[in-house]
Amino acid sequence: MHVMDGIESRHDGIVGSKRKRFIKKEKKIEIDLLYDEIRKGSRLHLSKAITLLESRAEHDQKAGQGLLRKLLPNTGESIRIGITGVPGAGKSTFIETFGLLLAEAGHKVAVLAIDPSSTVTGGSILGDKTRMEALAKHPNAFIRPSPSSGTLGGVHKKTRETMLLCEAAGYDIILIETVGVGQSETVVRGMVDFFMLLVLTGAGDELQGMKKGIMELADCMIVHKADGENLKLAKKTVREYRQILHFLQPATPGWSTTALPVSSLERTGFETVWETIETFYEKMEASGVWHERRQSQTKDWFHSMIRDRLIDSFFSQQGKKELVADLEKQLLTGEMTVASAVDAILPMD
Amino acid sequence: MHVMDGIESRHDGIVGSKRKRFIKKEKKIEIDLLYDEIRKGSRLHLSKAITLLESRAEHDQKAGQGLLRKLLPNTGESIRIGITGVPGAGKSTFIETFGLLLAEAGHKVAVLAIDPSSTVTGGSILGDKTRMEALAKHPNAFIRPSPSSGTLGGVHKKTRETMLLCEAAGYDIILIETVGVGQSETVVRGMVDFFMLLVLTGAGDELQGMKKGIMELADCMIVHKADGENLKLAKKTVREYRQILHFLQPATPGWSTTALPVSSLERTGFETVWETIETFYEKMEASGVWHERRQSQTKDWFHSMIRDRLIDSFFSQQGKKELVADLEKQLLTGEMTVASAVDAILPMD
Repeated sequence: MHVMDGIESRHDGIVGSKRKRFIKKEKKIEIDLLYDEIRKGSRLHLSKAITLLESRAEHDQKAGQGLLRKLLPNTGESIRIGITGVPGAGKSTFIETFGLLLAEAGHKVAVLAIDPSSTVTGGSILGDKTRMEALAKHPNAFIRPSPSSGTLGGVHKKTRETMLLCEAAGYDIILIETVGVGQSETVVRGMVDFFMLLVLTGAGDELQGMKKGIMELADCMIVHKADGENLKLAKKTVREYRQILHFLQPATPGWSTTALPVSSLERTGFETVWETIETFYEKMEASGVWHERRQSQTKDWFHSMIRDRLIDSFFSQQGKKELVADLEKQLLTGEMTVASAVDAILPMD
Repeated sequence: MHVMDGIESRHDGIVGSKRKRFIKKEKKIEIDLLYDEIRKGSRLHLSKAITLLESRAEHDQKAGQGLLRKLLPNTGESIRIGITGVPGAGKSTFIETFGLLLAEAGHKVAVLAIDPSSTVTGGSILGDKTRMEALAKHPNAFIRPSPSSGTLGGVHKKTRETMLLCEAAGYDIILIETVGVGQSETVVRGMVDFFMLLVLTGAGDELQGMKKGIMELADCMIVHKADGENLKLAKKTVREYRQILHFLQPATPGWSTTALPVSSLERTGFETVWETIETFYEKMEASGVWHERRQSQTKDWFHSMIRDRLIDSFFSQQGKKELVADLEKQLLTGEMTVASAVDAILPMD
């Protein structure tokens, strides 16, 4: 239905109904083809579908939504893992090594990224991607960087939808990378089952650049680069973090967040990480927390998108931004109370 | 101007213009009287003014806003201190003892409270109030519990406006109490200069009930009931917290959050608390952080009120809540994508 709407809006008044019908058919075929190929696990067609959803063209988006709706019954059957860390913590190396081990073990692994350029920070995901060449070549792996622009809400939406497409394509492990500054890790925490925070030795100090409360978003902390001369210090850091974590709120009710030493260089510690995730899954499945979190994440996503659209469409109205800026001036000079400034821009109905 | 609007809307089509003029006059006098008496420091008239702002009647609110606008030039000259803590940490005892010491030292102290009944938690502020009898009797003190109902945003607004009225009445120290669960402490952090978190001995364990990241909202942690047999353990707890705080983000840039032992029973530790606040003020004044925070708090308050009103007025529209609830069902059963659910309730314009 939406698909056809899309086509119509694309050709309104330009072409005759005959041509229209033809295109509808063509588009319909495209959707069916994409559906079949994605279900067969074609990475090429998965990429095409993601591009549809990322497209700014209304008819592409509607076609993408039509496809996604068709694929929805095949989604949800994966473990969704978020990974964040300070720049320099070696996230890409960790993800590539972890992803390869899982892919070699027969898992199908999709790696997505919230592009930092759409948040407050810098850094290059494309850079990350090229640094994941070995994983990118593996038949069981799929790597997709996020759109490099758009609001955080938009990136959020696209990453979530990409995740669903990957699940429909049979990927049973989704790794979502983000940078632990600004808001993106809260957004990612809101779409994953399990969240990992990568740090280096020297507990705390390098967390200074990170978001407040980020340790309390994590289900597991990874002290990375725990190898060579660094190993002893890494183990000390692990002990320190475990002590701190004891005082903090766990990110998941009924789970106690722990810290683990990992070396991507020596490929050590990954088994324990995976066992931890499996234990987490079993416990949370049994307690119902897994299912509840998935449901509340969907609800929250829905409500945050409603809020975003309400606010965006309000501020996109003629002159609103200017009025707000002008009222701000009067507030800061004390000429006006906040209440009357709000009445000035949004009269009580 | 607003004042008159208020009266008119109150009597539209009900009474003649003569009567209208008469009331305008009467109301005008009331505002002038309140202004003069509040500036003279009358607690009675301060209470009357707060009641105007808390009133649900439009004409009262407009009169209150008119008064507040008139008083605005006399606001801002206080140290705004937020105090939170787990239930049982002894917040009221701490506030009463601290408030009395400050009042006896010649400060004018106003104690406000964010009423928990408007947030996710229980607890009774009126109970707190009766437990502050000695402070309530002191001529330099003013105690006002928050409205016992309304949205968090509403309570936020009223508490902020009450704070401004207290400043105009010459109170140079504002203590705002909140319970460290739910959202209210984030709201209070957003309206104060300095934020204190009261805890008991046994670091961390009793923080379990509290909000994630709450330690990172605090400029100072108070280990309360540091007296008698508890003193040794309290000092140990202080050391533990100082170690943890080293790993966490400070709430205020350029400030390192510390932990202090305090006993309300023995009246010990309060001098250090006050010295800490004074040092904080001097440093943040000099660095400009104080001023910047005040300005960004006003901006944030303005923007959050705009968002709240946008969302409230949307969901107050006929049938919107029901539609959202219905769409949620379809989302959770996987019949619908979030994007199409959002389009269904808020079509893209």
